[in-house]
Amino acid sequence: MAKVRALVLERQHELALRDIDLPLAVGPGMVKIKIHTVGVCGSDVHYYTHGKIGPFVVKAPMVLGHEAAGTVTEVGEGVVHLKPGDRVCMEPGIPDPNSRASRLGMYNIDPAVTFWATPPIHGVLTPFVVHPANYTFKLPDNVSFAEGAMVEPFAVGMQAATKAKITPGDTAVVIGAGPIGTMVALAALAGGCARVIIADLAQPKLDIAARYQGVIPVNVKDRSLRDEVDRLTGNWGADVVFECSGSPRAWQGIAELPRPGGMIVVVGLPVDPVAFDIASLSVKEITIASVFRYAHQYDRAIALMASGRVDLKPLISETFSFEDSIKAFDRAVEGRPTDVKLQIRMEA
Amino acid sequence: MAKVRALVLERQHELALRDIDLPLAVGPGMVKIKIHTVGVCGSDVHYYTHGKIGPFVVKAPMVLGHEAAGTVTEVGEGVVHLKPGDRVCMEPGIPDPNSRASRLGMYNIDPAVTFWATPPIHGVLTPFVVHPANYTFKLPDNVSFAEGAMVEPFAVGMQAATKAKITPGDTAVVIGAGPIGTMVALAALAGGCARVIIADLAQPKLDIAARYQGVIPVNVKDRSLRDEVDRLTGNWGADVVFECSGSPRAWQGIAELPRPGGMIVVVGLPVDPVAFDIASLSVKEITIASVFRYAHQYDRAIALMASGRVDLKPLISETFSFEDSIKAFDRAVEGRPTDVKLQIRMEA
Amino acid sequence: MAKVRALVLERQHELALRDIDLPLAVGPGMVKIKIHTVGVCGSDVHYYTHGKIGPFVVKAPMVLGHEAAGTVTEVGEGVVHLKPGDRVCMEPGIPDPNSRASRLGMYNIDPAVTFWATPPIHGVLTPFVVHPANYTFKLPDNVSFAEGAMVEPFAVGMQAATKAKITPGDTAVVIGAGPIGTMVALAALAGGCARVIIADLAQPKLDIAARYQGVIPVNVKDRSLRDEVDRLTGNWGADVVFECSGSPRAWQGIAELPRPGGMIVVVGLPVDPVAFDIASLSVKEITIASVFRYAHQYDRAIALMASGRVDLKPLISETFSFEDSIKAFDRAVEGRPTDVKLQIRMEA
Amino acid sequence: MAKVRALVLERQHELALRDIDLPLAVGPGMVKIKIHTVGVCGSDVHYYTHGKIGPFVVKAPMVLGHEAAGTVTEVGEGVVHLKPGDRVCMEPGIPDPNSRASRLGMYNIDPAVTFWATPPIHGVLTPFVVHPANYTFKLPDNVSFAEGAMVEPFAVGMQAATKAKITPGDTAVVIGAGPIGTMVALAALAGGCARVIIADLAQPKLDIAARYQGVIPVNVKDRSLRDEVDRLTGNWGADVVFECSGSPRAWQGIAELPRPGGMIVVVGLPVDPVAFDIASLSVKEITIASVFRYAHQYDRAIALMASGRVDLKPLISETFSFEDSIKAFDRAVEGRPTDVKLQIRMEA
Repeated sequence: MAKVRALVLERQHELALRDIDLPLAVGPGMVKIKIHTVGVCGSDVHYYTHGKIGPFVVKAPMVLGHEAAGTVTEVGEGVVHLKPGDRVCMEPGIPDPNSRASRLGMYNIDPAVTFWATPPIHGVLTPFVVHPANYTFKLPDNVSFAEGAMVEPFAVGMQAATKAKITPGDTAVVIGAGPIGTMVALAALAGGCARVIIADLAQPKLDIAARYQGVIPVNVKDRSLRDEVDRLTGNWGADVVFECSGSPRAWQGIAELPRPGGMIVVVGLPVDPVAFDIASLSVKEITIASVFRYAHQYDRAIALMASGRVDLKPLISETFSFEDSIKAFDRAVEGRPTDVKLQIRMEA
Repeated sequence: MAKVRALVLERQHELALRDIDLPLAVGPGMVKIKIHTVGVCGSDVHYYTHGKIGPFVVKAPMVLGHEAAGTVTEVGEGVVHLKPGDRVCMEPGIPDPNSRASRLGMYNIDPAVTFWATPPIHGVLTPFVVHPANYTFKLPDNVSFAEGAMVEPFAVGMQAATKAKITPGDTAVVIGAGPIGTMVALAALAGGCARVIIADLAQPKLDIAARYQGVIPVNVKDRSLRDEVDRLTGNWGADVVFECSGSPRAWQGIAELPRPGGMIVVVGLPVDPVAFDIASLSVKEITIASVFRYAHQYDRAIALMASGRVDLKPLISETFSFEDSIKAFDRAVEGRPTDVKLQIRMEA
Repeated sequence: MAKVRALVLERQHELALRDIDLPLAVGPGMVKIKIHTVGVCGSDVHYYTHGKIGPFVVKAPMVLGHEAAGTVTEVGEGVVHLKPGDRVCMEPGIPDPNSRASRLGMYNIDPAVTFWATPPIHGVLTPFVVHPANYTFKLPDNVSFAEGAMVEPFAVGMQAATKAKITPGDTAVVIGAGPIGTMVALAALAGGCARVIIADLAQPKLDIAARYQGVIPVNVKDRSLRDEVDRLTGNWGADVVFECSGSPRAWQGIAELPRPGGMIVVVGLPVDPVAFDIASLSVKEITIASVFRYAHQYDRAIALMASGRVDLKPLISETFSFEDSIKAFDRAVEGRPTDVKLQIRMEA
Repeated sequence: MAKVRALVLERQHELALRDIDLPLAVGPGMVKIKIHTVGVCGSDVHYYTHGKIGPFVVKAPMVLGHEAAGTVTEVGEGVVHLKPGDRVCMEPGIPDPNSRASRLGMYNIDPAVTFWATPPIHGVLTPFVVHPANYTFKLPDNVSFAEGAMVEPFAVGMQAATKAKITPGDTAVVIGAGPIGTMVALAALAGGCARVIIADLAQPKLDIAARYQGVIPVNVKDRSLRDEVDRLTGNWGADVVFECSGSPRAWQGIAELPRPGGMIVVVGLPVDPVAFDIASLSVKEITIASVFRYAHQYDRAIALMASGRVDLKPLISETFSFEDSIKAFDRAVEGRPTDVKLQIRMEA
């Protein structure tokens, strides 16, 4: 254990930038990373404002932050693909490699996964972290630390795009233009869609998404999403619909949006059961897929960013210093529609 | 038009065995078939008792029956794969071959499909029918007319088994041991499952299903389905869950049954929207697939029956003469749990 | 029949721009199109220089040309999605919609397909053509006729990208940077690849491909393709290898290029049997897929061009007038490495 | 190390039943198993007769045998799903769980796999072995040790059937009716095929396979396989062709056997490169898949055997005592066409 400075969620509504004991010994297969940039995620903010997410309750002080990039400073025994000085980003979830789900290649749904900043596991808003080398990914020279810290939320979009089994040239609908909806839209385009119709009530969010080629914004205050989908697809429907709003209302009539044989991918999670017309799936043989975090997406996400096919830099709305990290969280709590991603830069 | 004898649903609750005008000219690509055996389907019975199914309302007298086998008596211009004397069974749905869905290979979800005994289209409880040769399938010598008339309901099971993307050796759960649940169970076993856990409240239905090797019955009056699935799968869950009951209660906790990464196939359709916990899909990344009738299943179903790998004969509970066909319907209305399939034999 | 002017291949080595009788009656489901632009394809040129391709032999004068765009001038009975004045491009292959392959959605491999400029079927280097509306696709306002005439070769790339079952962020290798290799590379990127390593001996071809973001050229005169793939993928291998050269040498050691579980897609066809080490597939469980023309790709290709995600304009090397069309073919015969696509513009 | 009795291949052509030092300490996650039955595999025999298989050369004395079943006698730390007394069978290959291939779920193609009786790794023709619990599978009460020792070769068939992506009711062709061809045929039937056409020159092998329902034998000395496939499929072709002979001649004209859009699965490996007409794949868009051993098949294979859907007992041709194990190998060298599987029973 070492005493180090960290952004600690003491309990609901109470953040402190203070010293805390964290384990920093570098065992076999592990690497030590000096953290450079950490993104503020909606789940971090939710623990701050609500003290819990579903069954995960903050019962003891917990370091926040799980979207991180930094520099390797030390490598443990047996680590061959990384060395001190390597610029990296890290997957926040660590599965049991011998679980049945992990052995089948689905480590994200291994019930034994531990995940940064998910109680009782500490996050990485602190200068150093020790992490398994297998879940630490080298950043190419042309991918900045700030972009590296965007890989985590983009990986959620990649998982959704992968589950959608996109056929090249597909038309997608994304319901909800928040940070995750936007990530999903970009991953869907990178993953083969010709165009993404994105729907929201907040015009500033739509305006940000619409800067990307191939994105068609629909403000559902003004227009019917179904009518727009019908118009743009010649009454055929969308190949894939990504539900990213988590709103129960999104599920009313959602089966009207996909084409015959099309797919709905659940990304946003309604808190309560939703009254859903299951029979409406049948007449078009619609499939519903769901995603939980991501598996095997980091290297793919980084490759798309490195090749220039995905540019996440315009989504970084503002960067705060580590000393201002409580300000960053309070700004995130405001929920400004023009903010997509706030980041905290650990180094001066 | 020819005046022929038929079982006519005059209106809700009123059946008549009487003469009616039906078109029997044999155009290009068509064949004329002398009907031998017709199965009584739940949907036929439902039109009799309720006068409608969803948006389909009986507004004029309609001939019932859509599960049929018979003998070709005449072939139209251009028909090469059939000749008079061939023993055949027929798909009751006729799509538009030039529709977008048909051209993509999904003719079953072409909105333009016409379907026997679905208002206003007449069914085949009548001595002859004219049908497209493309939807008429030759029966091998070792498949009887009675079995040929079982191909239609079995094709529903085949469509479900196909959508389930079974991996050889899978464990399936079938919820509901009625005729369709039983067909799904047999198709799932023929399609690669090692075992099928079938659940119902009616012991006689379970007893019939349990005669088949690989079927494990669970009477949910006595036992928890989830506990049985956990016990039989070492707490891993089923690879596929086929929901065949249409009961809203089946959807409560259904996500507990599949394994991580598993699938639910919707076969039974709840009449009203169901309160469903969509978030429960996510943590195991469950997929929901749905089926609407079937496409490209008749030849496959017949092949399985001809090779002896599927035996549907034990499911034929009783056979009525054409003259007794109203009796057959009244028996079907009784809903005896020991009745799986009632058939009507047109010929003496 | 109408007597119209056309570019006629009289026999091997002999082209004439002359009048010929062609059928121009507009039957039900057909449209008449005034041709605007026609691309010169390698197969057109091959009939000119060799008089045959495999089993297809030019035995009678045949109009050349099958990559075409134009304007609808007349529509037949029952055509609803097109009207005179619509700018369109056309699929050159017409299948039998009632064949078994077509009904399964694979109309491209229906043996009964007829295809423009494949003996004995006439092509479209002539002012008008009558074509099935179902295989005629409307061009959006922002897609030019010249681009419309590029949809055909791009559809070949799309078919290959679709068969490759690309996962978002994949790394692909394309062997051969000719017109088809380049189309495949662009379709692979549009279809979800992060990067495409393209290999050829001709530097000018590589230079053209390398103008596109995400394309990594490898001149195999100078460097080992395998070494480059190993270097760029950390010795893991490519997710997909598209063989577009048709060269027997490409098949030597090709199994070293894909990653474990990866895929090879056959696009280029070696004329003769190739000595291939089949066992080399096994140790990495490599899959080989193959493509034949395309099915269901035109609307997808047009959508990608309309959204700006695919730009084929830089690949149009030079445009000739109809009167100069023999010159266009003689230029194509030269095989300049800087020529990707030559086009003929029918209108003044 | 413990000194134990074992069947040792001293060098090519020389077997000895003698004492040898083997490691029998039970580490964490490991189990110790008393071996009951071991099958004689073609690869064991090949090391005996040739001293090598491809790059694997017997350079030091090596214990033979890798198809084994037995009883757990001791479990290491952390093992929860097994206990002393459990009847089990074991996967002979042990991958590195942290390799890239293993983490993706493809542990069979992890280059770091060690495999029993593949030089320099010892096999299990010896009374005890220590093995990872994760690769040790409990046998249900109704699966005997003899059947348990058949799981290994059957798993090869299961891997092939899984790769074939069988659709329920498919028609398959298996080329080669040796032990592996027969296993593939049974796995294909269990995995959803309606019928399997199996081809060989040796009538006794065909006779054994033909005892199973759904198997159609074709002796290619007498008849053309292609003609039989055409006849049985109405000139459409087989959905899947499993090449299990490893014969270069099987590759001549193999593309004539699958249907349009069909698949060839490579199971038998030709020793040398084969002259193969790659272009013949294209016109029907045929896919070739390949298999290397198996992954995730043991539990599925056992489930099929336990449910009675697969019966491998008729394939056990003769059982030898451990003391007679050299006789068993010499009998295997004879290659009697009526021998499918010879087994050695370790216990009295």
